[in-house]
Amino acid sequence: MCPKCGSPLDLEYRRGDILPELRDIIRCRDGIWCFQQLLPRYRYRATLGEGFTRIVGLRVNGVKVMAKMESQNPTGSFKDRGAALAVSMALSMNAKAVVEDSSGNAGIATACYSKTHGVSPIIVAPSTAPKGKLDLIRLCGAEVVIARDREHAATLAPRIAIERSGAYLPHTWLPHHIEAMKTIAFEMHYQVDELPEAIFVPTSSGTLLLGLYRGFKDLVRLGYRDRIPRLIAVQTRSFHPIYTAMKGGELEPEEENLADGISIKRPPRLREIVDAVNDSKGDVVVVSNQEIKRALKELISRGMIVEPTSAVSLAGLLRSVESGSVFERAMVILTGSGLKVVQRMIEIVQP
Amino acid sequence: MCPKCGSPLDLEYRRGDILPELRDIIRCRDGIWCFQQLLPRYRYRATLGEGFTRIVGLRVNGVKVMAKMESQNPTGSFKDRGAALAVSMALSMNAKAVVEDSSGNAGIATACYSKTHGVSPIIVAPSTAPKGKLDLIRLCGAEVVIARDREHAATLAPRIAIERSGAYLPHTWLPHHIEAMKTIAFEMHYQVDELPEAIFVPTSSGTLLLGLYRGFKDLVRLGYRDRIPRLIAVQTRSFHPIYTAMKGGELEPEEENLADGISIKRPPRLREIVDAVNDSKGDVVVVSNQEIKRALKELISRGMIVEPTSAVSLAGLLRSVESGSVFERAMVILTGSGLKVVQRMIEIVQP
Repeated sequence: MCPKCGSPLDLEYRRGDILPELRDIIRCRDGIWCFQQLLPRYRYRATLGEGFTRIVGLRVNGVKVMAKMESQNPTGSFKDRGAALAVSMALSMNAKAVVEDSSGNAGIATACYSKTHGVSPIIVAPSTAPKGKLDLIRLCGAEVVIARDREHAATLAPRIAIERSGAYLPHTWLPHHIEAMKTIAFEMHYQVDELPEAIFVPTSSGTLLLGLYRGFKDLVRLGYRDRIPRLIAVQTRSFHPIYTAMKGGELEPEEENLADGISIKRPPRLREIVDAVNDSKGDVVVVSNQEIKRALKELISRGMIVEPTSAVSLAGLLRSVESGSVFERAMVILTGSGLKVVQRMIEIVQP
Repeated sequence: MCPKCGSPLDLEYRRGDILPELRDIIRCRDGIWCFQQLLPRYRYRATLGEGFTRIVGLRVNGVKVMAKMESQNPTGSFKDRGAALAVSMALSMNAKAVVEDSSGNAGIATACYSKTHGVSPIIVAPSTAPKGKLDLIRLCGAEVVIARDREHAATLAPRIAIERSGAYLPHTWLPHHIEAMKTIAFEMHYQVDELPEAIFVPTSSGTLLLGLYRGFKDLVRLGYRDRIPRLIAVQTRSFHPIYTAMKGGELEPEEENLADGISIKRPPRLREIVDAVNDSKGDVVVVSNQEIKRALKELISRGMIVEPTSAVSLAGLLRSVESGSVFERAMVILTGSGLKVVQRMIEIVQP
């Protein structure tokens, strides 16, 4: 963060002005770096072949929906794109270790990407972190440090980074995760004739939404497309700071939070998220556990084994449709695989 | 099977003579049906957006390897391609249920594909089936029937199919799984400039190897490529009927079989597999648990979270290289995701 004002930092870099040919993209083995001309440059580039995830069509309650299957990424979530960029930065800084305080998808991605590229990952997790995800983090070769709670983890992680000559890579603060998510927008340019009119995005710290926003802006700036889709931030009853900022008021939180992937009270880039939503003529929608559960059941019954947080996007779309909105070409981003949390999924969807 | 001679049946159909344009493939939402001109025709087509899995490059012990990431398919394995075709047949027959005796990836795929398309899946599993995979089969909405053992499951399944007016879809006998795997070869045509010189394929009933063989033959027949890659069947010390047929003799089996996905003693298409391997100037390689374990560790350390059976292909490649073979462009097929079996993976790779 900026030592003067406490705001998150951004990357300034010279962007190329042309997308690669489709043929070259398909034959490229370098994951997000297939779009290197439009990304920050680093001496070393980490990749596990992330990106170019499929778009699948489905129909829910008569509404035609496109789903971007981010669950197909190497470690099973969209965070792989961000990890590729953030770990590249750490590599180029000659960091001896990489430290991150996340016990979820970001922790898994950071662990795998850094270990694979020869930097030791240290993941600081609260004692409440789910065992299944910690197992996966350990399988990827990370050292796991257990903190008392989330706050303790967030203060411990940077301290460990200094002690171990490592790079602290908090995905909620770094601009790298945002820049990497632009590649989702770039891919869509090849994958669809007409861009979706609205995209429903589970939103917490906003990396995904802001990345999409910046990526579509690039497509317009470079003359590939003439407008950007409406970006609809979807949040939960338990955590909805964007809703509060845009519409005012707090909603009664629910005891449990089914969407454990999106649970941030004060996103560092709140203002920027609100501006991006407004500029795209988008909106913010808040969904309940009941709605997430229903959307998750719908997805599983369509063979989409995605985690509960992914279902938030479909829940948002269904709520918008039920409130009278009409979409010809709506898209949901399905952020992560459900294969990591089969037990949890069974508990949620079974009667 | 043929009621006269007991051999497996094949599908005869008129094949188209042209592959789609890359642009159309990328914008297609129909999974393997993007290649419908080169597949059997059905009135109803099941898909969950399978296929067009990425090829990722890696380097192991100085050898450059391409990995086809079949783990990226919707339910996490290459069986999704076969399920798309087999369930389409069941749908077109107006089957009321679909029955399969597999508690592994084929069972998961069959369950998801049939349930999603409105046909009730019934999966007959031996009592020894791993709980994790059965959980996933149930999550996909299948009814699970527990049999005493594999043999009991194989006799029970067709009986249940008759009782329930269902279609029995044994993936080891049906030609549909083979025909569907041709799409892996078709995809490679777009994904690589030069086809790999050798492809290492974990081989049990041979659907994957035979499908690749038929797909590459189509590419040559249609004039897209001028030769087919060498197909190397990789088997384990516990189950190696192709090795016995091609080289004679039995190897001492190991107590445990780490590659639980490939454990068939008498593949119905043994002769056909041997002929395909020979025609491609291929070979058969047998690997030990020790070699599978080592290959699995290599893959995980490269961020490829694939199941132990997938590691069989890399183990086969490493063994070939150590025996003096030299490959410029070798490929391994990584058949299924390790996210389904994280606990098991930890048990295997940890010291």
